[in-house]
Amino acid sequence: MELEEIAIFLSGKIEGDKNINIAGVGKIESAVKNEITFISNPLYEKFFGETNAGAIIVSNSFEVKEKRNDISLLRVDDPYLSFLKLLEKFNEGKVDQLSGISDNCFIDTDTEVSNNVYVGNFVTIGKNCKIGSNTKIYANSSIESKVVIGNSCIIYSNVSIYKECVIGNNVIIHSGTVIGSDGFGFVKQSDNSFKKIPQIGKVVIEDNVEIGANTCIDRATLGETRICKGVKLDNQIQIAHNVFIGEDTVIAAQVGIAGSTKIGKRCMIGGQSGIVGHINICDDVIIGASVGVSKSIDKPGIYIGYRARPQRESLLMDISIRNLNKLENKVKDLEQKFSK
Amino acid sequence: MELEEIAIFLSGKIEGDKNINIAGVGKIESAVKNEITFISNPLYEKFFGETNAGAIIVSNSFEVKEKRNDISLLRVDDPYLSFLKLLEKFNEGKVDQLSGISDNCFIDTDTEVSNNVYVGNFVTIGKNCKIGSNTKIYANSSIESKVVIGNSCIIYSNVSIYKECVIGNNVIIHSGTVIGSDGFGFVKQSDNSFKKIPQIGKVVIEDNVEIGANTCIDRATLGETRICKGVKLDNQIQIAHNVFIGEDTVIAAQVGIAGSTKIGKRCMIGGQSGIVGHINICDDVIIGASVGVSKSIDKPGIYIGYRARPQRESLLMDISIRNLNKLENKVKDLEQKFSK
Amino acid sequence: MELEEIAIFLSGKIEGDKNINIAGVGKIESAVKNEITFISNPLYEKFFGETNAGAIIVSNSFEVKEKRNDISLLRVDDPYLSFLKLLEKFNEGKVDQLSGISDNCFIDTDTEVSNNVYVGNFVTIGKNCKIGSNTKIYANSSIESKVVIGNSCIIYSNVSIYKECVIGNNVIIHSGTVIGSDGFGFVKQSDNSFKKIPQIGKVVIEDNVEIGANTCIDRATLGETRICKGVKLDNQIQIAHNVFIGEDTVIAAQVGIAGSTKIGKRCMIGGQSGIVGHINICDDVIIGASVGVSKSIDKPGIYIGYRARPQRESLLMDISIRNLNKLENKVKDLEQKFSK
Repeated sequence: MELEEIAIFLSGKIEGDKNINIAGVGKIESAVKNEITFISNPLYEKFFGETNAGAIIVSNSFEVKEKRNDISLLRVDDPYLSFLKLLEKFNEGKVDQLSGISDNCFIDTDTEVSNNVYVGNFVTIGKNCKIGSNTKIYANSSIESKVVIGNSCIIYSNVSIYKECVIGNNVIIHSGTVIGSDGFGFVKQSDNSFKKIPQIGKVVIEDNVEIGANTCIDRATLGETRICKGVKLDNQIQIAHNVFIGEDTVIAAQVGIAGSTKIGKRCMIGGQSGIVGHINICDDVIIGASVGVSKSIDKPGIYIGYRARPQRESLLMDISIRNLNKLENKVKDLEQKFSK
Repeated sequence: MELEEIAIFLSGKIEGDKNINIAGVGKIESAVKNEITFISNPLYEKFFGETNAGAIIVSNSFEVKEKRNDISLLRVDDPYLSFLKLLEKFNEGKVDQLSGISDNCFIDTDTEVSNNVYVGNFVTIGKNCKIGSNTKIYANSSIESKVVIGNSCIIYSNVSIYKECVIGNNVIIHSGTVIGSDGFGFVKQSDNSFKKIPQIGKVVIEDNVEIGANTCIDRATLGETRICKGVKLDNQIQIAHNVFIGEDTVIAAQVGIAGSTKIGKRCMIGGQSGIVGHINICDDVIIGASVGVSKSIDKPGIYIGYRARPQRESLLMDISIRNLNKLENKVKDLEQKFSK
Repeated sequence: MELEEIAIFLSGKIEGDKNINIAGVGKIESAVKNEITFISNPLYEKFFGETNAGAIIVSNSFEVKEKRNDISLLRVDDPYLSFLKLLEKFNEGKVDQLSGISDNCFIDTDTEVSNNVYVGNFVTIGKNCKIGSNTKIYANSSIESKVVIGNSCIIYSNVSIYKECVIGNNVIIHSGTVIGSDGFGFVKQSDNSFKKIPQIGKVVIEDNVEIGANTCIDRATLGETRICKGVKLDNQIQIAHNVFIGEDTVIAAQVGIAGSTKIGKRCMIGGQSGIVGHINICDDVIIGASVGVSKSIDKPGIYIGYRARPQRESLLMDISIRNLNKLENKVKDLEQKFSK
């Protein structure tokens, strides 16, 4: 694509050669002559002098400190968003062109498969399922009976979906993820052994959800575990039975949420955090990384620490702890002065 | 099933219509007319006025505050246990009726498969294995050579069991779980690279163990990694080589146990806790969530905190930390008074 | 093998019967008559009197406290390394003799498979891949298009490798691991929903890397996520997009490393630790278990604690916290004395 075409696509202004050919997008540190890159964060301006990219998307106010005749500039309002738009455009051609039902998969009786569905090699789909149009199911995934999957979903390889789970439209599920495994529920018997409580509920995943690799979402004991519209879950997350996660909440890798907890809308939860069972987190709560949440949170805000506390409170406590040694010395001084 | 039948099954007394038809069990918040629910925890009594359930299991002493003519009560000694009994009964009909050996699986030579075994599509079973009667192996699971699996086990889809591992009777293993992968053992060489130590031991899983999804249990370097009778492991747990877990111990999701550690009987370990290698945890120890255990524990009790301590000690320490700011102010006061 | 043969192999000296037959290696606690074991750590000397092993590898300076006529000693310079050498020797015969391309796998067009490759049942390999000689790919693994895998690799069962990833020589990847899943990148839209940022980079894994079970390594947004030569990753580790891990670094189970972070060479990271995104850890850093690292580290050394600090500093802080109660009492005393 010529730079001029890109300029039109992004409504930008070119400084330099408008005819250079751009074959792809790249990081400023590693882009090559026929790639375009961008500078948004001022920290990356230092690469301006060194980059081998053929063109750079910069902001309208970007100041060139050392002129380079071998690079064309493309000035736009927001270089980062423009770059993402371009990234998408270049990615269009790279998306897997997979289609058709493999001869090597197994689809059981009474299962409806809509138009333009891809089912890869060694996929198993049980009885009485529905697979919506334009959905892709990659190799070696296993879908039990009575599962409903909507339109335009991508289920990557080696995914397991247990019976009766419901997946909406435009859902992406990465490899190794398990949807609908039994919740962890047992009753202690008089001989100290544990008896399994049947887990007869299901998992419901609404539209536009993305779920990372090797994540687990357990089915409900009764009723449902629900992941609402637009939720984004990273890799290796554990969602226990009967959990509810509100719309557009984003959860980073390795977070664990225990049974029956309800998370609000638009929350953000940092990696490795843990949330105990049977509590409520209200809308718009931000939880840091490696935070332990053991009580309900009913006020939006940022919470951090080994035992979750409002950010300011937690930071002040940390300062006090860091200064403990000084405090000990002050007390020692006072004791000495007093004993004189 | 008519309510009268349920009353006989649970040895309960009906107040209301004994002939209403009950098709299933439900949560009090979401149950519908042909479902039965229960009240055990007083916190749920508030739902009594609103529930749409047709019948409610309550205790003999339950007091009706606002009479409802549209609901039948079933009085029993222990509503929770009665409900679980009923849950099991309704679940019986819902258990997967899977049987037979799929035409699309691969079972290698010299492997014995007992009566009434289910082997799903695209399952691989290696040479010289034994699969006990009534065991079910779901689609896409992979079992290497010389593996022994007992009777009445359920191995869900996409499970990997490495060679020579031994699984007892009535064991349930959920999807994505890996049994018998190599322990993490290396020797540092003089050039700073690491050389692999062969892991030639195995994993032994005793009877009545349940293992959640995407959990890993590594094979021993020498000897065995052993999970004793009745142990329940949740999802995404990491059990390193040569670990021993005693009978009826229950471990929540995302716990990690490092190599050669021995856990006693009837312990309970909360989610995301980590236990270092080469230590012993005695019987009847309760470890909270996100606890770091770096030393052996030789007294039963409850242990919590970033560095595991007895619960009382840890809570007192937390109070001291929360009051640090006050302590700082006291010292400042003393300093001022003293300097006058 | 006769003990005499082992003595020659290890350049050791026999005390006792040089003709006893040794069929394998064992742990000192559980070894049987035809096995050889070792004593390196003095803590294990207590087992000398009880072991049922037929022979024990000991150091040249090992002192026999209670003579046993039923056991032969083999004296060497370093019992542990000698034992490992022997372990390897005995393991040679036990390594899986797998070869050939299964009739039940699927290899797509334009994929080159070199000599002596093993491809197990129900493996899928996409278009335009290259699989190096002597590499083994176990059952049910799924490899997308344009993946390059070097020579002498072992890819265990149920592994997923996304398109365009590059794997070097002598790489071992355990079951359930996912290489090349999308990085977790989204842009917040004005309606609070999140839009996916295409992840068009790849993952590069260099030679001699071992990766445990159920670990995830995300592909880069642009460019690559790189795991350098000799790195050893344990189970259930999360490596986010664009992370770089330097040569011979060793990472224990359940560690999470967020996006774009760079880890140096020869680092060691303890289990369950978390490292935030966009920071640098220099060479030769040791991070304990369950440590939270939120800032770059530019000095080699040992770092521990919920918020990573140099070990000594962290330990002193812990002592201060443990003594907080005493400090409170001292302040109380001072207040009382002062108020008199």
